[in-house]
Amino acid sequence: MKKHDQDFMKRQNRLTVFEIIKNQQPISRASIAKQTGMSPTTISRIVGELTEEGYLLETEQVSPGGLGRKSTLLAMVDAAVLSVGVELDWHRIHIGIVDLQGNVIADGRYPRSANESADATIERIGAEIDRLTKANDIDCARLIGIGVGLPGIVDNAKGVVVFSVQLGWKNVRLAERLKEITGYDVAVDNELKVKALAEHLKGAAIGSNRTALLGFGNGVGSALIVEGEIYRGKTNSAGEIGHTTIDPNGMLCDCGKAGCLQTYININSLLSEANKLHPVRSIEELFEARRAGERWAMYLIDRALMYMAITINNIVCMYNPDSVILSGELADKFPEIVDEVVDLCYSRFAWEPLRESFQIVRSELHEQAVTIGSGLMSQNRFFSLE
Amino acid sequence: MKKHDQDFMKRQNRLTVFEIIKNQQPISRASIAKQTGMSPTTISRIVGELTEEGYLLETEQVSPGGLGRKSTLLAMVDAAVLSVGVELDWHRIHIGIVDLQGNVIADGRYPRSANESADATIERIGAEIDRLTKANDIDCARLIGIGVGLPGIVDNAKGVVVFSVQLGWKNVRLAERLKEITGYDVAVDNELKVKALAEHLKGAAIGSNRTALLGFGNGVGSALIVEGEIYRGKTNSAGEIGHTTIDPNGMLCDCGKAGCLQTYININSLLSEANKLHPVRSIEELFEARRAGERWAMYLIDRALMYMAITINNIVCMYNPDSVILSGELADKFPEIVDEVVDLCYSRFAWEPLRESFQIVRSELHEQAVTIGSGLMSQNRFFSLE
Repeated sequence: MKKHDQDFMKRQNRLTVFEIIKNQQPISRASIAKQTGMSPTTISRIVGELTEEGYLLETEQVSPGGLGRKSTLLAMVDAAVLSVGVELDWHRIHIGIVDLQGNVIADGRYPRSANESADATIERIGAEIDRLTKANDIDCARLIGIGVGLPGIVDNAKGVVVFSVQLGWKNVRLAERLKEITGYDVAVDNELKVKALAEHLKGAAIGSNRTALLGFGNGVGSALIVEGEIYRGKTNSAGEIGHTTIDPNGMLCDCGKAGCLQTYININSLLSEANKLHPVRSIEELFEARRAGERWAMYLIDRALMYMAITINNIVCMYNPDSVILSGELADKFPEIVDEVVDLCYSRFAWEPLRESFQIVRSELHEQAVTIGSGLMSQNRFFSLE
Repeated sequence: MKKHDQDFMKRQNRLTVFEIIKNQQPISRASIAKQTGMSPTTISRIVGELTEEGYLLETEQVSPGGLGRKSTLLAMVDAAVLSVGVELDWHRIHIGIVDLQGNVIADGRYPRSANESADATIERIGAEIDRLTKANDIDCARLIGIGVGLPGIVDNAKGVVVFSVQLGWKNVRLAERLKEITGYDVAVDNELKVKALAEHLKGAAIGSNRTALLGFGNGVGSALIVEGEIYRGKTNSAGEIGHTTIDPNGMLCDCGKAGCLQTYININSLLSEANKLHPVRSIEELFEARRAGERWAMYLIDRALMYMAITINNIVCMYNPDSVILSGELADKFPEIVDEVVDLCYSRFAWEPLRESFQIVRSELHEQAVTIGSGLMSQNRFFSLE
């Protein structure tokens, strides 16, 4: 019984019942039993737990038979559940209060200096959550937890930031420390994974069964959602496409290898290459120089776009998704490049047998995606859905 | 109820009950109910179906309580199930009779000329299966179906070979036509996917939860098994790493693009490059030339090994597996290269944060892997497990 140990079955059954109620409410116990094949005892246990925890209510409804017989139906208490979603990036923090449907009902943005210590950042997040909930009269009894999304390798089971080049963090016990400060359970994950979850549930990938999300910004990464679940891999590092080797004779990457994909695409690399020739302080200036016809800027950005198109093909060959979402600072700030990349991909790099198998779409939730996804992840964790 | 429609739940429940009985036999109905939370009605229905179909039997056993009370236990009828596994390659066909445990109880190998038509090949497979079962006194009532593994893109749901460069086939309705000839249900899939399934269940990856298999031979490909299931993607094409672009300025590939990974590794490409300088008729001759210190042979093979090491890193970054299996003609015929590739990978190409996350192992089932995997796939299909 490798795959189906008892705990797994219990969590799985709870998830199944929860999803059915959430999607089909109001619904009777009998209908849940019929759909799942579970015993009345199992269903009563799960419904009992969820009711006792305050997330379900029973309603009475006259049965459609018309004989006046009343049946008891189950429904979610939407208002009972709120969570905090936090996007943590090297230069800013975004905190939102997220409801059961993924709506952000209050939020705040806070700058962060690149050299702020992990301790200081975590304390500040705790203090800002406190301020945000008070300023918006949030009933804290309804808050079930905090989710944090950030760039880097995250041990999501332990809530530890294993390694983040962008934040300069290594083995930071984020979940534990933020829980000490706030009292709430904290779930932590890689920003692209929660972003993909948000786009899948609420954004550009609604209806998709296999979604690959690509992030082009400070760092290059991807995430895969398969039938509603994040594909994590063994150490929650699946999708680290930025460190796939694309040219063994290429430029050195900050990871110590040569020719990693991200050296051709990420903002820092583009700026550092540009500055060999010309002082360029921001990615906006680089794009302006390209529009002005400066050859060095055209070369750098054209090459980055080519590698983005190659990356789409490589992701499609590896994951065979039905949808590819383009996201990240470059796609968000310069939407004109998305069309160029899509054209390049189809005209030069897409492998013929898979040309028709996928669509390419832009992220829809943009700057809200990580916050919403983090909040929803926290709720999933709370309901023992993962 | 997107994920959990009723049919899905029914198949899932049948799979769960089947796996529990297969792995824990003999086992009582009560124990299955306790582990799964399913109702006695559901369990009785599933057990009834499987018993009626002849795959389960009931045994009586004195209960360990010692009061002489007998309880009824369920067990598999191992001998009731056999299937045919077929490996179809451009130059040969291997047919084996596979039992429920994945043992090959009889097999035969047959050469195939590269220009044999699809019709002729399929008819020959049918005739050889007939001859093999008769010659080995196989009780055909026990044969539940045929599985075929081959190189190329396969629509596994329809049993159609969509596209196979190696066989020169396009849209061949293999399952339908082989069923017309033999009368048996036929399951078809890509050779690397069934090979990965066999290694996962019976070979090098027993105990692994996330296995990536790499095949280096005529063509380069990969397959991913996640917790016992083949990851297929939308069109069953996941893992087509051979057509990921690794150098936009590289050599032309037979797919019409430039710089596909396989142009640096696959046997045909190596021979065609070598023959620009020197007449080389086989991959064995090329390796002999390398051992003799011929620079052109050393260059070509060293480059291929470097790209194999890069491929391991890229697969690890994308799939984050716990095990990587090296397989295919190059790894099987020239086992000495495996150590070289592993060294290269760890010393130059593995991304530091994931260095410790995976093991690299050689295929164990070698030339039997596709046949065993095809047979097991046919059994899975028969029991409605996929």
